[in-house]
Amino acid sequence: MPAALAWRLVSNDSAGVRAGIVVTGTELLSGLITDRNGPWLAQRLGGLGIEVAHLLCVGDRPADLAAALRFLADQGVDLIATSGGLGPTADDLTAEVVAAFAGVPLELDESMAQQIAVILARFRHLSRFDSEGLRAANRKQAMVPRGATPLDPIGTAPGLVVPVKDGPTVVVLPGPPRELQQMWPAALATEPVRDVLSRTLPFEFAQLRLFGLPESQIAVTLRDVGQALDLTPLEITTCLRRGELVIDIRHRPGAGATRDALIEAIRARHAQYLFSTDGTSVDDQVAGLLRGHRIGLAESCTGGLLAARLTEVPGSSDYVAGGVVAYSNAAKTLLLGVPADLIELRGAVSPEVARAMADGARARFAADVGVGITGVAGPGGGTKAKPVGYVCLCVTSSDGSTLASDPVLPGDRAQIRDRAVTTTMHLLRRLLTSPA
Amino acid sequence: MPAALAWRLVSNDSAGVRAGIVVTGTELLSGLITDRNGPWLAQRLGGLGIEVAHLLCVGDRPADLAAALRFLADQGVDLIATSGGLGPTADDLTAEVVAAFAGVPLELDESMAQQIAVILARFRHLSRFDSEGLRAANRKQAMVPRGATPLDPIGTAPGLVVPVKDGPTVVVLPGPPRELQQMWPAALATEPVRDVLSRTLPFEFAQLRLFGLPESQIAVTLRDVGQALDLTPLEITTCLRRGELVIDIRHRPGAGATRDALIEAIRARHAQYLFSTDGTSVDDQVAGLLRGHRIGLAESCTGGLLAARLTEVPGSSDYVAGGVVAYSNAAKTLLLGVPADLIELRGAVSPEVARAMADGARARFAADVGVGITGVAGPGGGTKAKPVGYVCLCVTSSDGSTLASDPVLPGDRAQIRDRAVTTTMHLLRRLLTSPA
Repeated sequence: MPAALAWRLVSNDSAGVRAGIVVTGTELLSGLITDRNGPWLAQRLGGLGIEVAHLLCVGDRPADLAAALRFLADQGVDLIATSGGLGPTADDLTAEVVAAFAGVPLELDESMAQQIAVILARFRHLSRFDSEGLRAANRKQAMVPRGATPLDPIGTAPGLVVPVKDGPTVVVLPGPPRELQQMWPAALATEPVRDVLSRTLPFEFAQLRLFGLPESQIAVTLRDVGQALDLTPLEITTCLRRGELVIDIRHRPGAGATRDALIEAIRARHAQYLFSTDGTSVDDQVAGLLRGHRIGLAESCTGGLLAARLTEVPGSSDYVAGGVVAYSNAAKTLLLGVPADLIELRGAVSPEVARAMADGARARFAADVGVGITGVAGPGGGTKAKPVGYVCLCVTSSDGSTLASDPVLPGDRAQIRDRAVTTTMHLLRRLLTSPA
Repeated sequence: MPAALAWRLVSNDSAGVRAGIVVTGTELLSGLITDRNGPWLAQRLGGLGIEVAHLLCVGDRPADLAAALRFLADQGVDLIATSGGLGPTADDLTAEVVAAFAGVPLELDESMAQQIAVILARFRHLSRFDSEGLRAANRKQAMVPRGATPLDPIGTAPGLVVPVKDGPTVVVLPGPPRELQQMWPAALATEPVRDVLSRTLPFEFAQLRLFGLPESQIAVTLRDVGQALDLTPLEITTCLRRGELVIDIRHRPGAGATRDALIEAIRARHAQYLFSTDGTSVDDQVAGLLRGHRIGLAESCTGGLLAARLTEVPGSSDYVAGGVVAYSNAAKTLLLGVPADLIELRGAVSPEVARAMADGARARFAADVGVGITGVAGPGGGTKAKPVGYVCLCVTSSDGSTLASDPVLPGDRAQIRDRAVTTTMHLLRRLLTSPA
């Protein structure tokens, strides 16, 4: 799910090592494809204590890449990571542009040429290169800027670490995310990158998750706390993810006491909403709580989404006994034993039917925990009394405990369905953690 | 789902109008939040015929934003779109930085100040501003660079269109995606942006979707076709999305014949894989084909994902009769009538059991189309004969037609489950389109 930014304190971290990222690819600038390498690299660099100053997406024109590298050097970054443009064809020009940027010639690396020859031979039947073209491609990919360290190919293209005299070290990585990610450790192990890393302090991280608290309230809390406590050593990001409020806190070593004081202040004000301080998701928590139980599911408006979400977890077959997607009244009665006259009396979307569905699922699958979800996902089907977004959720257990909720959820059909499932996950968490 | 880039022809479009995008926000550079505004703006600008030359994400430091604007101006872009930094607090500095870039002073816009006062009053109870602070915030957000056109706020912040003497026009938009998107039409309607648009030709678009063809084969086809036909007027992007190969074609007016010739060449070579030339997804097509039918679902390893995917579509309750998630053998027998001795004989993951599940779902829900899915999603549970990724899929209809498939799907648990559902969608499409 895309995340929405809520609120942020200004970073006061100006002393540290800075990096820039250049992602190449004309297709990224058409908006048809969303770049995954930039955020991945940003997160890795941040984890190492390096602040990312700029992230640039540029097309495949050499002049555009060269301009991006010069721009980052002018900003005084210590490290540049690039992705893409390392293929065998004439328009893959990253190595050439980076060599020119470093002011060094490209030279053939014989041992790399042999490695690539072996790889290309495997792909020969898929390629349109004749043997002459294959030799040229092979030679092209084995050209290394003088003084650079080549990184062994994960796919077909080697990477490079290029030191630049009086400038930033450039880490040149391939475009396919899998290749880039697998090559990253080798880049970190090179001398020039180790040298950059030796000048930085790693960040420390904490993550809080809250459910049910409006975003605006956490903004108020952060401002209040900030008046009593100097929060400037912390970088705080809050965002909504799948209906939960996630607070990420990042800081340099030495600010642990400030971080802990902030966490305690949030806990003191919002204990009933705070469900995770160790980065675990509600999915992780429910999966842990369900071990040793058996759960049966009855879904109407969510159409199998809860079942799909619970079974994302490997090993969930041990506790997910089964589920029924029952849209029609007939299916609710036939498969789940919901009395037809209850549906008639209260309506298919009602707390009573959600309860009967939960009990029915528990009985049907010989489970000890049952879930019932029925609601109006829209866009049609809403009434004044039961508008689009109205959902009835119920979780029951064989010891007689029951938790229910019937909120009117905001958003479009997809958001209503997703939030209904998230709300149910939190009901399950509460049911399974409440004292017997 | 994240998309992987496969292959691309170089864009030869150098004559057109060029734009740059600057997305501001320190949180985007931590990798914790993925920017949605950049790709959205890139797609809109592309649709208007404007080529995006660079997309930059920068932190909230004014110097970094100023450097990004100067960089884009140096690259000779005609238009710059920015997002973020328009809030009421001291660190929201986009308007100030853009005014300095344009070389004009900020001036209070009285009518905007009044508009914002009304909006801020509504949020007052959520804000920590005292009345003095509120007036300051109000005044700050109503400051407009001389000669700029303010854009009415969607949330709390107005946007700006700022003409720059001998430089690019700057469109300043708020950071929240909903606000940015809703403000976009007003930005396009301003005189300076209309002037830029008058100098460009819109792109035309086509999209092909194929299922079952390896990416490497389409690369070979494109190279082959490119030898007989000059494809340079076309910009071609291929990527894998949810297991399908999507080919996007973009071109200026006048290249329609080249585009059609390419489409026909792809059709001639890959007719059995090509299922969409009008941009419709398999989900759209199956939804259309299912109208007037009733479908019943039986899922094991996909755990409700197929039901969830079919019911994403509004109105799907008309044809989705229901579904059963049956992990355990007992549930398969009890709810779907799969004979226990068949499971014993062939194994729970077998084409025979998938067939019995499809028939059982059809009978159970009084449907005329039935689906059975059983497989090994992993990471555990694989054997030599039935490895992780082995799935048995079957679709049957009451007229006796049956289509089945039992591939070994690549990827991790999530990918195997998603691909099993996509493969089933294509089986359904074939079942429902095959001549009776």
